[in-house]
Amino acid sequence: MAHRSRLAGFIIDCHNIPADEAAAFWSAALGYRAQPAYSEEGAEYADLAGAPAGLNVEVQRVEHASRVHLDIESDDIDAEASRLEALGARRIGFVKRWWVMEAPTGHRFCIVRMRDGQEGAEANHWD
Amino acid sequence: MAHRSRLAGFIIDCHNIPADEAAAFWSAALGYRAQPAYSEEGAEYADLAGAPAGLNVEVQRVEHASRVHLDIESDDIDAEASRLEALGARRIGFVKRWWVMEAPTGHRFCIVRMRDGQEGAEANHWD
Repeated sequence: MAHRSRLAGFIIDCHNIPADEAAAFWSAALGYRAQPAYSEEGAEYADLAGAPAGLNVEVQRVEHASRVHLDIESDDIDAEASRLEALGARRIGFVKRWWVMEAPTGHRFCIVRMRDGQEGAEANHWD
Repeated sequence: MAHRSRLAGFIIDCHNIPADEAAAFWSAALGYRAQPAYSEEGAEYADLAGAPAGLNVEVQRVEHASRVHLDIESDDIDAEASRLEALGARRIGFVKRWWVMEAPTGHRFCIVRMRDGQEGAEANHWD
């Protein structure tokens, strides 16, 4: 069945730094608006509002080393995971509501559910 | 003196992988158009055309571990480096035409010269 996907945005994973503190730096650096940090199922996030093209940019407090990871959003995350596997990626695991993947280039990224009613770039259609 | 800056895009640094090969995966994953790889001063790059809001997305073959790094573009990269230092970043070094910086969150990023005549998000103005 056909499905759609596109770049959702990127997450700035910050090793052992409170999300509010990380958001203070990155919002000022990028000229975005730091939103209040929130916790969900043991993780701590803060959105950075104002990125172009509806991109979702956020900071996350993590236990692993600091890095930036990309999110791809899709209206069928299982089909998208299969499509990306066929391109050489592998599934690391299903976490909460998303697939954690590893690209053949070694980068971890996530496949998340496509947000409804968001502006942004036109999604890619895959048959 | 006032200067401007904004997110230029992100670079997918790929450890010891030919840029063409890395671009083949990431262009298909994101639905962008891989451009032919090129070498410049010992580094190898391939642009991924078609990102929204004029964002510059490219892959780069690197010797260090694979990661994603952000680029900030500015019409005054020295003033921008000073602004970001005041926010807690530090200068790692000047490479070719850009400042390599490290955020207080541990992420490396670059400050590059603002591209002329590019569409994209409105730049931030800093006094």
